[in-house]
Amino acid sequence: MSSTYSGSIKVSIFGESHSDAIGAVLDNIPAGEKIIFDEIIMQMQRRVPGHNNISTDRKENDIPEVISGILNGYTTGAPVCAIIKNNNVNSEDYKSLKDLIRPGHSDYSANIKYRGFNDKRGGGHLSGRLTAGLTFCGAICRQILEHRGVVIGAHAYSIFDVFDKKFEGNLSDKLLINLSRERFPVIDRNKKEEMMERILQVQKDGDSIGGIIECAIKNIPPGVGAPIFDGVENKISSLIFAIPAIKGIEFGAGFSSAKMRGSQNNDPFVINGGKIATYTNNHGGILGGISSGMPIIFRCAVKPTPSISRPQKIVNIKSKLMQEISISGRHDPCIVPRAVPVVESVAAIALLDLFKEAGLL
Amino acid sequence: MSSTYSGSIKVSIFGESHSDAIGAVLDNIPAGEKIIFDEIIMQMQRRVPGHNNISTDRKENDIPEVISGILNGYTTGAPVCAIIKNNNVNSEDYKSLKDLIRPGHSDYSANIKYRGFNDKRGGGHLSGRLTAGLTFCGAICRQILEHRGVVIGAHAYSIFDVFDKKFEGNLSDKLLINLSRERFPVIDRNKKEEMMERILQVQKDGDSIGGIIECAIKNIPPGVGAPIFDGVENKISSLIFAIPAIKGIEFGAGFSSAKMRGSQNNDPFVINGGKIATYTNNHGGILGGISSGMPIIFRCAVKPTPSISRPQKIVNIKSKLMQEISISGRHDPCIVPRAVPVVESVAAIALLDLFKEAGLL
Amino acid sequence: MSSTYSGSIKVSIFGESHSDAIGAVLDNIPAGEKIIFDEIIMQMQRRVPGHNNISTDRKENDIPEVISGILNGYTTGAPVCAIIKNNNVNSEDYKSLKDLIRPGHSDYSANIKYRGFNDKRGGGHLSGRLTAGLTFCGAICRQILEHRGVVIGAHAYSIFDVFDKKFEGNLSDKLLINLSRERFPVIDRNKKEEMMERILQVQKDGDSIGGIIECAIKNIPPGVGAPIFDGVENKISSLIFAIPAIKGIEFGAGFSSAKMRGSQNNDPFVINGGKIATYTNNHGGILGGISSGMPIIFRCAVKPTPSISRPQKIVNIKSKLMQEISISGRHDPCIVPRAVPVVESVAAIALLDLFKEAGLL
Amino acid sequence: MSSTYSGSIKVSIFGESHSDAIGAVLDNIPAGEKIIFDEIIMQMQRRVPGHNNISTDRKENDIPEVISGILNGYTTGAPVCAIIKNNNVNSEDYKSLKDLIRPGHSDYSANIKYRGFNDKRGGGHLSGRLTAGLTFCGAICRQILEHRGVVIGAHAYSIFDVFDKKFEGNLSDKLLINLSRERFPVIDRNKKEEMMERILQVQKDGDSIGGIIECAIKNIPPGVGAPIFDGVENKISSLIFAIPAIKGIEFGAGFSSAKMRGSQNNDPFVINGGKIATYTNNHGGILGGISSGMPIIFRCAVKPTPSISRPQKIVNIKSKLMQEISISGRHDPCIVPRAVPVVESVAAIALLDLFKEAGLL
Repeated sequence: MSSTYSGSIKVSIFGESHSDAIGAVLDNIPAGEKIIFDEIIMQMQRRVPGHNNISTDRKENDIPEVISGILNGYTTGAPVCAIIKNNNVNSEDYKSLKDLIRPGHSDYSANIKYRGFNDKRGGGHLSGRLTAGLTFCGAICRQILEHRGVVIGAHAYSIFDVFDKKFEGNLSDKLLINLSRERFPVIDRNKKEEMMERILQVQKDGDSIGGIIECAIKNIPPGVGAPIFDGVENKISSLIFAIPAIKGIEFGAGFSSAKMRGSQNNDPFVINGGKIATYTNNHGGILGGISSGMPIIFRCAVKPTPSISRPQKIVNIKSKLMQEISISGRHDPCIVPRAVPVVESVAAIALLDLFKEAGLL
Repeated sequence: MSSTYSGSIKVSIFGESHSDAIGAVLDNIPAGEKIIFDEIIMQMQRRVPGHNNISTDRKENDIPEVISGILNGYTTGAPVCAIIKNNNVNSEDYKSLKDLIRPGHSDYSANIKYRGFNDKRGGGHLSGRLTAGLTFCGAICRQILEHRGVVIGAHAYSIFDVFDKKFEGNLSDKLLINLSRERFPVIDRNKKEEMMERILQVQKDGDSIGGIIECAIKNIPPGVGAPIFDGVENKISSLIFAIPAIKGIEFGAGFSSAKMRGSQNNDPFVINGGKIATYTNNHGGILGGISSGMPIIFRCAVKPTPSISRPQKIVNIKSKLMQEISISGRHDPCIVPRAVPVVESVAAIALLDLFKEAGLL
Repeated sequence: MSSTYSGSIKVSIFGESHSDAIGAVLDNIPAGEKIIFDEIIMQMQRRVPGHNNISTDRKENDIPEVISGILNGYTTGAPVCAIIKNNNVNSEDYKSLKDLIRPGHSDYSANIKYRGFNDKRGGGHLSGRLTAGLTFCGAICRQILEHRGVVIGAHAYSIFDVFDKKFEGNLSDKLLINLSRERFPVIDRNKKEEMMERILQVQKDGDSIGGIIECAIKNIPPGVGAPIFDGVENKISSLIFAIPAIKGIEFGAGFSSAKMRGSQNNDPFVINGGKIATYTNNHGGILGGISSGMPIIFRCAVKPTPSISRPQKIVNIKSKLMQEISISGRHDPCIVPRAVPVVESVAAIALLDLFKEAGLL
Repeated sequence: MSSTYSGSIKVSIFGESHSDAIGAVLDNIPAGEKIIFDEIIMQMQRRVPGHNNISTDRKENDIPEVISGILNGYTTGAPVCAIIKNNNVNSEDYKSLKDLIRPGHSDYSANIKYRGFNDKRGGGHLSGRLTAGLTFCGAICRQILEHRGVVIGAHAYSIFDVFDKKFEGNLSDKLLINLSRERFPVIDRNKKEEMMERILQVQKDGDSIGGIIECAIKNIPPGVGAPIFDGVENKISSLIFAIPAIKGIEFGAGFSSAKMRGSQNNDPFVINGGKIATYTNNHGGILGGISSGMPIIFRCAVKPTPSISRPQKIVNIKSKLMQEISISGRHDPCIVPRAVPVVESVAAIALLDLFKEAGLL
C-alpha cells in the first residue's frame, strides 16, 4: 500500500499535488554512471503541461533539484533524491470540490482509504503530477541502460479513433531514439495532425479522449527476467499501473493472439548471421517471462481524462445529495502525448531493475 | 528473478514438470481460518488435464498432500505447504527435444538464463504444470476471502472468434459462484458448444487457439489498494503474468476506454439506498489504484498453446542447424478452460494480499 | 544494498554529509495521525552536535522541512518526506583525506564498493549525519505508537568503565518518558558527571571512548512479532545496525544468559490481577520472536568514535604508502549521548513496523 | 510476520514439530552449481539430536528428500525444495501441556498471536526442529560460496563458565574447515571435556545451560554489503535471530569495544604484499556495513534450553491457576553444540544473499 517500489532497485515517490514539492528517491543504482542533467530535463519537459493548447494551463517548470547521489556528473552509489517544487498551485479551484465525489476520479475510494485525511487539493498524492517523479527516475535509469546499449522509445499508437502505425519487426534504434525526444511522437507523421484535430474538437466540447501508447525496448540481451512472479511482463505491468490513467497492457500480439492459431502466433526461430532470432515478434520479446533478445514491445490503454468541463452528476459525501455541476479547473482533453515519456520512464525503471537482478549492472 | 511472491502474504512455487513433485508454500495468512479440503480439490480438479478430449493426455490426479499449516481443518498460522506428486511423467518425449528451440516456447530464453542447466524435461520449472501450485494457494486464499463475503468467478469470455457475454453491471453473487465451480464456465451456455467445436476443429488440424478470460471479484469494500505502486491493478497484473500463456490484461473498459470520450467512460456515482455506488462500471471497481466497492473486473488474453503437432521450423542450439519437424507429445489445443480456475486463483491471492495490507484480516 | 527499508512500513534515507541536504521518506503509515512538530524537533535536537563541549563543532540546526505527507498537523496517508539542509559544510577538512584509508572508518570498504565514485566529503552517505533522517522518521513513528500507549526510552548504560543502573523489572512509564526527553539520559544521575569526566579526559588525550545504550519499550501487547525471520529481535537488530557505530546487540539477559542455568534464566509466568505476566524479564519481553507483553529490553554496544586526533598509521590508496598522521577535523570524543535518541528512534521504527504487520494500526 | 526471507535470495521455512514433515525452499540461487548431497547430509547430521547422551532422545534421521531444483548433482536455477519427514513424533508428551504456559517458552506469546489455533505439539512451528530447514538451505549456500573460495566455521566459544580460545587475527582456512565438520567443535581441544562435564552435571540436576558460539567467515572480498539498512551486520543479525535460542550478537570486538579507547579499537590498515589489510580485527571484517576483506567474525549468545525437568511454576491459561510441575519430555541440557552448524548455516545464507546483491554470483 505504499509509494515505494522495492525491487532490486528501489523507487520512492513522494509529494502531493499542492504540497511544497513532489519528488523521488532512486536507490540501489550503480556508482560511477555518467548522468547528463540536460537529458533528464529534456525528458521531464516532454511531460510538463502548458506547452500547447491541448494541455492544462497549470504551468510548472519542473526543474528537479538533485539533492544527493550525483556528484560532478556521476552517480555516487548513494540514493539519488530530487525535489520538484510545486509553484503554480491554485488551491482555490479545489476547495469547492472537497466533499464532492467526481466520476472517474479517486475521490471516493481515497476518501474511504484515508478516512478523509488525504490532501484533496489537486488530487493530492493521487494526482497525475506525481508522474514527474517517475519521469525523473526513469530518465536516470534510461541513461544507465543506454550505457549498456539499450534504447527505449514510445509513440501515440492511437488517439480515440485515429491510429498510427504499429512497430514493425525490423525496428531501428534510430526510430526509437527519435521518438524518445519528441513531444508528440508518432511513427506516421501524417497522423499527428489528425490526432491533434480530434483533441481540439473534444476540447471544444468540454470533453476528453483516450488512446493507446506503444513502447519498444531494444537491445535487451536474451536471458533477462524469470518465470512465474518476476518475469519481464510482471515487472513492466506492475510498474505501468503506477501511471493513473492506464487501464490495460498487452505484450507483443497481446489481445490479438487470443484470436490467432498457434501456427500463426508462434514466431519461428532462425539462425541469422550466427545469431538466434525470430523474424516476427508476436511474443513481444518475452518467452516464459524471460527476454528472447528480440525487441520488447508493449501497448497500454490510456483512458480519457476524467476531468471534463461538461456538466456531470456528482455526489456530495457529506450531504449525501446528488447534483449536476460543471467542474472548472485546468484539464488536459487528452493525456496521451504527455503520458508517452512517462511510459518510457516506467519501462526504463522496470528494465534497470531486471538488469540488476540479472547481474548486468 | 524468483518464484517467491513477497507481498503482505508470501507464495513460494517450487518444482519442475518432471521432478519428484511440485508444490507451494503459502505464508503469512491468518490462524484460525476454516479450510475445507474438498473445496481445494474441486478447484484443482478444474485445472487438471485429461478430463475430456480437448486436453493433454498427461493424467495427474493432483491431490495435494498438505504437509503443514492446517490442523484439524483450521489454519495454524504457520506456512501452509503442499506437495503434488508428478506421477504421469514421460520424459522420453522430451529427450529428443533437449537441444531444440521451439517457436513460442521458452527453450531459448531459459537456456540462456540458466546456462543450459535448467531441467528441460516437460518445460521444467517453466511448465504450465506449475500453475497447480498457484491453484492450491488460490483455493485457500479464496476460502479465507469467502469468510469475509468475497466472491470470485471467471469465464471463457472468448475462444478464437466465439464470444460469450461480458459481465454486466448488476452482477449477482450466484452467477460468480456457479461459474467458479464449472469446468468450462461460460455465461451464455449456448456459446460453449460453439467454442468446443472450434477447439476440436483446430485439434484435428494439429493446431491450437487462444482466447480471453474475464474475471470478476465481488464484495470488496471500498478503500482497498493504494496509488502508484501497490494498487489493485498493479497487484493483479503482476500476479496474472505468473500464468505462462497470458499476454495482456485490462481492467473495466480497458482497451475500449481508449476509444471513448470522458463523458462516456466516467461512471457517475449515485446514492443508492444510502450507499455510494456507480451504475456502470467502466472503471472495473478501481479508481486511483483503490477499490471503489464496485465489482473488480478484468480480462486477460490467453495466447494459443505453442505446442502444436503441425510441422514447424526449429533451430538446434548445438548444431546451429534449422529443421522442420512435427512435435509429438501431449498438448492442449486450447488452454483457456483449464486456465479459468488459475485466473480465479491468482485473483484470490492478489486480493488476500490487498486485504492483509488494508488490515482486513 | 540499499538505503531503503521495505518492511510493512518503508523508510528511505538519502543524502550525503556534504550534499545540499539529507533527508528521509517515511511511507505506508496510517492517515489521520496527529503529529506534533515540536516533538520531532525536540528529538532531533537531542541528536544534534554542538550543544556542549563533548561533541563535534559542526553546527547544524537540523530543522527538518516537511515537504509532504502532513497537512494541518495530521498525516495524510501519503509518504512523509523531510529535507534537512547541510549548512555547516566544511569540505576543506576532507580534501586532504580523499585518498587516505583511515583506521576504523569505511574509507577502504566504501572505496572498493563504489569504485571510487562515492562522495568522500565528510564520510558521504556513510556519515553518522545520516542518522538525522532516522531520527526524523523515528520521531513520527514514536508519536503514532504513543497514540496507542507505547512508551520508549533509553539511557547511557555505560560509557567506558562507568556503568549506570540497568532497567529493572518494574519499569515505570514515567522513567522512560523522562529519559526520552533528555540530552544525556541516565537512570542514576550521579553517574552522569563521572561519565562526562571520562569523556573530557579522553578528549584531552585526542582519543575517544565507547559505551552501551540500553533501551526499553513498554506497553507492547502480547502477540506482536513472529517466529523465524520476522520476530521482534530480527526487526530491531536489523534496524539497529543502521547506526554506524553499533557493534553488538542483546535482548533481555542477552550474553549473561550464556552463563546462566535454565532454572535461573526462565522467567516464571504468574497471574497478576487477572493478567498473565512475569516478574523477572530475562527474556526481554520476547519469546519465540513474539512479544510477551513485558517490556522489550535491549542493549547495544557503541564503539569508540574512529575519528581521533592522535597520530595514527594510515595508508594512501593511490601511492600505496603508509604514513602516520594526525587527523584534524570536528570529532565527538564519545558518540553515546547523541546516539541515545537514534537508538530510541530505530526502536520506534521497528515497533511501528511490527504493529502494522500485526494489524494494530 | 512470515517464515519467508525475501532478500536477494529467498528462503521459505515450513512445517511444524509434529506435522507430517518440515522443510524449506531456497530460491533465486544460480543455476549450474555443483551440489554434493553428502555434504548436505553431513551438515544436517551435526544438528541432529540423539547422537550422544547430552541431547534429546527424539531420534530423527533427518535425511532431506530433495524434491526439485537439483538435477544430476547441479542446481537447475529453479527453487530447491526439500522435505524432512517427522518420524519420531511423540505427541502424547505434549497433550497434557496444551493449556500450560511454561517459563522461557513461547507458549503464551504464540497462543495470543495465533488465537489458540497454533499447533502446540512439540512447539509447533516455533520448535527448534525448524532449524533443520535452515541447515539444509545453509548447506547449499555454503557449497555455492565454497565454489568462490569462501570458508565458514564456528565453535563453542563458551558453555556456561568454560571458555574456549577466541578466533585470532591470523585465522587459517584449515581451522575453519576442520571446525565446520565436527559435532562439538572447539579450538582448544582440552576445553571440550570440561564443557561436556558441565553439561552432564547440569543434566543430572534436571537443569540446562547456555553458551556462546563464535563464527568466522573467510575470503569475503572487500566491498560486499552496504551502509544503513542492508549491511553485513544487518543481514547476519536479522537472520541469526531465526535460531530460537539466540539472545544476542556482536561483531568483532563487539561489546568489548564499548570499554575501549578509539586508539585501541581502531585497526590500522597496512600494505601487506601489495594488499591492503589490517593486522588486528576489532572491526570483525565490517566497516560501514561493508566487508573490509578481513575475516567476518561474530559471536552469539545461546540461552539455556527453557525445557528443564526440575519443578517449575506454570500457569494454566484456561483455568487461570498457577501450579508447580515437572515437565517430562525429551530435552537437551545444552543446545550449544547442535546450534553450531545452524549458526554456520545462517551465516552462509546471509553471505550468499550479500554476494547475490553485490553481483558476485
